Amino acid sequence: MAQTFSTIALIGKYQSPDVAESVLQLAAFLRGRGVGVLIEQGTASAIGAGGDFALATYEDIGARADLAVVLGGDGTMLNTARRLAAHEVPLVGVNQGRLGFLTDIAREDACERIAEIIDGRYVAECRSMLAAEVLRGDERVFHTLALNDVVINKGDLGRMIEFDLAIDGEFVYTQRSDGMIVSTPTGSTAYALSSNGPILHPRVGGIAIVPLCPHALTARPVTLPDDCRVDLTLLPPHDARVHFDGQARFDARAGDCLRITRSPLQVRLLHPEGYSYFAMLREKLHWSAAPRHP
Amino acid sequence: MAQTFSTIALIGKYQSPDVAESVLQLAAFLRGRGVGVLIEQGTASAIGAGGDFALATYEDIGARADLAVVLGGDGTMLNTARRLAAHEVPLVGVNQGRLGFLTDIAREDACERIAEIIDGRYVAECRSMLAAEVLRGDERVFHTLALNDVVINKGDLGRMIEFDLAIDGEFVYTQRSDGMIVSTPTGSTAYALSSNGPILHPRVGGIAIVPLCPHALTARPVTLPDDCRVDLTLLPPHDARVHFDGQARFDARAGDCLRITRSPLQVRLLHPEGYSYFAMLREKLHWSAAPRHP
Amino acid sequence: MAQTFSTIALIGKYQSPDVAESVLQLAAFLRGRGVGVLIEQGTASAIGAGGDFALATYEDIGARADLAVVLGGDGTMLNTARRLAAHEVPLVGVNQGRLGFLTDIAREDACERIAEIIDGRYVAECRSMLAAEVLRGDERVFHTLALNDVVINKGDLGRMIEFDLAIDGEFVYTQRSDGMIVSTPTGSTAYALSSNGPILHPRVGGIAIVPLCPHALTARPVTLPDDCRVDLTLLPPHDARVHFDGQARFDARAGDCLRITRSPLQVRLLHPEGYSYFAMLREKLHWSAAPRHP
Amino acid sequence: MAQTFSTIALIGKYQSPDVAESVLQLAAFLRGRGVGVLIEQGTASAIGAGGDFALATYEDIGARADLAVVLGGDGTMLNTARRLAAHEVPLVGVNQGRLGFLTDIAREDACERIAEIIDGRYVAECRSMLAAEVLRGDERVFHTLALNDVVINKGDLGRMIEFDLAIDGEFVYTQRSDGMIVSTPTGSTAYALSSNGPILHPRVGGIAIVPLCPHALTARPVTLPDDCRVDLTLLPPHDARVHFDGQARFDARAGDCLRITRSPLQVRLLHPEGYSYFAMLREKLHWSAAPRHP
Repeated sequence: MAQTFSTIALIGKYQSPDVAESVLQLAAFLRGRGVGVLIEQGTASAIGAGGDFALATYEDIGARADLAVVLGGDGTMLNTARRLAAHEVPLVGVNQGRLGFLTDIAREDACERIAEIIDGRYVAECRSMLAAEVLRGDERVFHTLALNDVVINKGDLGRMIEFDLAIDGEFVYTQRSDGMIVSTPTGSTAYALSSNGPILHPRVGGIAIVPLCPHALTARPVTLPDDCRVDLTLLPPHDARVHFDGQARFDARAGDCLRITRSPLQVRLLHPEGYSYFAMLREKLHWSAAPRHP
Repeated sequence: MAQTFSTIALIGKYQSPDVAESVLQLAAFLRGRGVGVLIEQGTASAIGAGGDFALATYEDIGARADLAVVLGGDGTMLNTARRLAAHEVPLVGVNQGRLGFLTDIAREDACERIAEIIDGRYVAECRSMLAAEVLRGDERVFHTLALNDVVINKGDLGRMIEFDLAIDGEFVYTQRSDGMIVSTPTGSTAYALSSNGPILHPRVGGIAIVPLCPHALTARPVTLPDDCRVDLTLLPPHDARVHFDGQARFDARAGDCLRITRSPLQVRLLHPEGYSYFAMLREKLHWSAAPRHP
Repeated sequence: MAQTFSTIALIGKYQSPDVAESVLQLAAFLRGRGVGVLIEQGTASAIGAGGDFALATYEDIGARADLAVVLGGDGTMLNTARRLAAHEVPLVGVNQGRLGFLTDIAREDACERIAEIIDGRYVAECRSMLAAEVLRGDERVFHTLALNDVVINKGDLGRMIEFDLAIDGEFVYTQRSDGMIVSTPTGSTAYALSSNGPILHPRVGGIAIVPLCPHALTARPVTLPDDCRVDLTLLPPHDARVHFDGQARFDARAGDCLRITRSPLQVRLLHPEGYSYFAMLREKLHWSAAPRHP
Repeated sequence: MAQTFSTIALIGKYQSPDVAESVLQLAAFLRGRGVGVLIEQGTASAIGAGGDFALATYEDIGARADLAVVLGGDGTMLNTARRLAAHEVPLVGVNQGRLGFLTDIAREDACERIAEIIDGRYVAECRSMLAAEVLRGDERVFHTLALNDVVINKGDLGRMIEFDLAIDGEFVYTQRSDGMIVSTPTGSTAYALSSNGPILHPRVGGIAIVPLCPHALTARPVTLPDDCRVDLTLLPPHDARVHFDGQARFDARAGDCLRITRSPLQVRLLHPEGYSYFAMLREKLHWSAAPRHP
């Protein structure tokens, strides 16, 4: 029993002329198919005009849309996922340039692929998110969600930071390093991969803990079950910066505890029929491209 | 409602004089506590004599023992796990030398710790195993279990081997390398770690695919959900050798398919109270031991 | 024909009470041996008083001392090396805590070892330094030396930076990453090692180019002959921060070129007899400390 | 004062029909330019016939040729380099398929590029080689040269081997691993690269020591000055196999010492004008090919 997509929201990367055209073209196409169209407000103002389409806040979209089509890159997708997470609106990503890890429909195929999805020809997939909060004494001074990763790093400072890692309340180690990446399977092919993190298939129920330039050669990444609670506590005198999906950020102080768990919320991604995670990896990681050894 | 341990089997590393003493001492201790003792037949003959204790085959142990205590190193534990897997006898490991990843009771504490376990003071943990088979055309020419890993490598040959990787029947890539390690979370701290594989907590439902010296720099390890079927098919003219927990081995021919899934069987490990996976990692990986940078 | 050490300068880590005692003790010891003693001015004021010993600026030390003994950690040694580089005063390092890569005399052995060195029982070793300058258009806006490394990184920014690498004027690649470490052999066991850089023996005439969390999996470290000129040019809109031995720093702007060559100046280190680079590596990297695999 | 190339030898990959055609075509072209042509004997018989060109052994070629053109892949080049090393005949490589690290002229450009080289338009480059010998007690039981690498590994065995590393007679460490790669700068982009070895520019006077799947996480590759003597001594009961450029091999026994130094012989490679080491790396390592992170 396929889902019905009566109202579809369009969300575009801001400040991108290419996106304006794609948004309006797709909006017209959907209207022609009898689908209700909402254009995200900021997108509309960024593209100059929403034409005669209904504008909507993320709140509205969450309440009314059956599907959100994101036109941009993986960054736009991450931002949308975090904003719509509480509303369970499924997402589809249309990439404006080269295909992304999350935006797997090419711009020129957008109308055709979205039409197929409306017709029920799609693959649905759930992606876990992280719930992160910064605790200062008894107070929660910041909290947000992340689909890719939470990164604590030395920020402005030239020197390493030092922090304790605890898992489910148990002390694991004190680390000196440039910082730490805590990543979902989705984030495992993003920044974590640059730091020698493990690639986790999206269906693995894991959270990866990936040290950034650690002082000790034995400080290897570890993958935890995703029901763990990860606490990173900054040891004095170290301040640090915390980044969430490379988008939100927070200045943490010595003594602060960054607490990360799997969020009860999930992101529901729809892919065109024939989507393959491994095909995507193969293309993005150039798995066919081997150096020639003698 | 704690389990009752009325009959306990003792299994020792073969050809090890130290083990003989430990086995007999523990056997006497258990008898003193009114516990029925079985000594594994090969162990008994290796240690010169079983004294006046009952000898038993692995088959007998599987049928009659409530608990098997393994005295040796991780290798002895792997061997026992594979042999007793079908019988669901829980295992406890006593290390004769330095503590192992699997044998977490020190020799000198053996009687005391085992007594505590009999009294119900223990932590139980399930470890997944791999079921591996080699398919040649329509025929299954070999099959076995592995608690750590299945390794396919070039064996005798100086040259790389070439094979296709398929997951759940879907082609993933052709790889040229020295081979591939397919590892459980338990095996992720063993050979896989030497090849830059990811450390997986035992509760992560994953299987790690770790290339051995791959031709392509982008051939990173990948962690799959443990309900996947992994097929490695040797491309002509490449023969290869397959190793199971570093103990059993099989000579595979070009065209053979090595198929690996999670086994429905699990190993049940009992640890002394206070056991901590992270404490074990910290000690084994020397996480407190950092080089001092300026 | 051994060198004569008539005048010896003592330089201590600032703000360290332990160092005060060591400096004064060594000063008294040297005076007792008839050696002229200079205490570095900042050291003297940091330790409360220079007693009745002659105080000296780095300039003075450069002009008058036959040897400088550095009491502190590798950081103090790096700082001294950069300040005295133009004067060719040989350096000896006394570590106040755990032995460092550069400070290989233990505090409690200081008098004895320095006495041996005065008596001509030492091993001398030359270490190359990097000359770094930042070019903005036609102007050189910053320049300094580094004994360990020059690091360009994203500094305050959450996002990767982008820059061109050219060697001897030839374009090599455009890289997106958190930054780049350019390291001497001396620096190869410091920060570069945390980023998967190669360990280079001090006598290897090489400069290591080590990417920090690079976007591309194939962006491996490369070791160049040390007569190469390395240019890193920041691509707009990327600003970045440049660090020299983790001590000096400079805010570079988009378009700036960071140019690095081997300096004609060298640091001359004196080690106690029996010094071994490999013994130092073995101890610092815990080469005897292996995880136990089954 | 350019070198004169009056006599040119052609050496082709054996058993390759493509090569036969290329060899004969180039031979005819050279004769047309008045150059004396020698065809290596084995090449001639492998390609069916040498036509009416003079056949020559490697010995003859060493004595009489001013230049040897190798048609094949990097493997053919390695073989030729080792055979002609004592004769100082410069080499040019023509690749039959995709360009190699050593064979940098494309098949279709062969005549044109070789003509340019004859006219003096080329870049000459020296590559260092390793001299390797196996010592058994007082006896030297094997010796040969290698342009890429000497690899000692577990060969047929499923288990790690154990050996001592000594540099210039000084004990460095005992290692348990799958083996060790000792590599020239030329070999640093070959097998060593698959094992996380460092890339060394050909002008770096270094020898890389790269562990194969080492037991200890801290067993990092080290680059030594190329005037070092490297001794690897197999500890009982470990036998091992030794490979030289992946071509020659020797079965070493427990107690054998594999001794490696830089050979006094060098290989002289001629490249077409405009050759760039970095351009070659860029192409082979796909440095322009980056995964797209969000």
